[in-house]
Amino acid sequence: MENNQTISHQLAHRTFREFTTDPVPEEVIDTLKKVVQWTASSTGKQASSVIRVTDPELKKQISEVCKQEYVARAPELWIFIADNARNVQIAKEVDSFAEGSADVRKFFAAYGDACLNVQNTYNAIESLGYGGVILGSIGNDPARVIELLHLPKYTFPVLGLAFGKPNQNPEQKPRMSMDFRFFENSYPELDNMLEQIADYDREMGTYYDLRNANQRVDKFSTQLAKYYAKPDEERQNMLKLIESQGFNLKPLD
Amino acid sequence: MENNQTISHQLAHRTFREFTTDPVPEEVIDTLKKVVQWTASSTGKQASSVIRVTDPELKKQISEVCKQEYVARAPELWIFIADNARNVQIAKEVDSFAEGSADVRKFFAAYGDACLNVQNTYNAIESLGYGGVILGSIGNDPARVIELLHLPKYTFPVLGLAFGKPNQNPEQKPRMSMDFRFFENSYPELDNMLEQIADYDREMGTYYDLRNANQRVDKFSTQLAKYYAKPDEERQNMLKLIESQGFNLKPLD
Repeated sequence: MENNQTISHQLAHRTFREFTTDPVPEEVIDTLKKVVQWTASSTGKQASSVIRVTDPELKKQISEVCKQEYVARAPELWIFIADNARNVQIAKEVDSFAEGSADVRKFFAAYGDACLNVQNTYNAIESLGYGGVILGSIGNDPARVIELLHLPKYTFPVLGLAFGKPNQNPEQKPRMSMDFRFFENSYPELDNMLEQIADYDREMGTYYDLRNANQRVDKFSTQLAKYYAKPDEERQNMLKLIESQGFNLKPLD
Repeated sequence: MENNQTISHQLAHRTFREFTTDPVPEEVIDTLKKVVQWTASSTGKQASSVIRVTDPELKKQISEVCKQEYVARAPELWIFIADNARNVQIAKEVDSFAEGSADVRKFFAAYGDACLNVQNTYNAIESLGYGGVILGSIGNDPARVIELLHLPKYTFPVLGLAFGKPNQNPEQKPRMSMDFRFFENSYPELDNMLEQIADYDREMGTYYDLRNANQRVDKFSTQLAKYYAKPDEERQNMLKLIESQGFNLKPLD
């Protein structure tokens, strides 16, 4: 197999949720900022930003949105936002902003930019011997995140990243075979999946998640049975919130 | 500054659009598949897949969606998709799939998973001496991409990645200062942005994009003036298409 430092870290990826109290040095922060700066972005618009949360009270409030108290203890907490605000402001200053032009395309371009930045930052962190956890859980209450961080119109919080020097030693969480996720030219028929993932299902059933140290996690199929058992009401109005942030999601007639 | 092989590549990031005809060796492909496999995913659901497009006719058809003929010439063309289809199928097989449960939360979790995979794959590619281009342009006509790749219900194409051995030597595209994109605890007031980005605006105006080798690109503010001059009708019905792929985006009453 082709290997190098970058790939070694990628293949050894684990999520870390507990950290030493050591602060992350400012020179590391400066490096990570450069990594964000040079990340690819849709048509070069750089439509994403980062809010670094250093205020302990604010961290605690974000951790409450995440419903994960370890978030408040992480040395670093960064919130990545889809950000058309700065670019809209510039367009307004050159007198060329049309109502409704912060549209579906611009929203998803910015959303994607923010996600690319999260993973690029994450790779940099892991390469420097730090560990972290990506926080989709800020999506539990994005309206509250908008309020806490004073996010203006034409922005939206996408993902958080908590990181520091790991203070735990978790197992790698098992993954399904790429036979189920990598296809050539065409998506295959899906049939007898439960039988096909039986080995993976068993493997996941023997994995210990450090969050519940004495309890095995559910089999993968059981996790999915719970995940699709009902719609998730908590996040169902997210598109309405995106619209209230100024984005035009209205379909054409 | 903190540095290592991973970060050196990240800070030297350039987009490459022209490649030698050398095929990417299968051992590299196998490594990249492992990188995708071990990428972080929302609550471990691994809700993304890759379609590797090897059929020349199909590549040509995708390049027409992208309106970029170089896409058809790239040695490798991968389409990253938000994929709830496999997981929904498993939930159905254990008789636990509720109508409407492929909802806003599941769509965005899968969309984010696909984006994280794109960047992680991209970092692996660059670390191995390859180069590539992320293709948001598959979004010009996602319905056509769905048709061409036979993408089933509960999937959606997110981004493409074309890559190979670079056969060109582009400049690094200038980036704005992180002073405008990295904030502490709170998003700042935006004011006099045009004045503040004046240096960057000038710098972008001297950059040569290899796609139009004899022509300088627009100043950044001019690019934005065009970008926000009107809504983008071509992509405005994307949410309708996502719904027609089986996702429940309907807000709660």
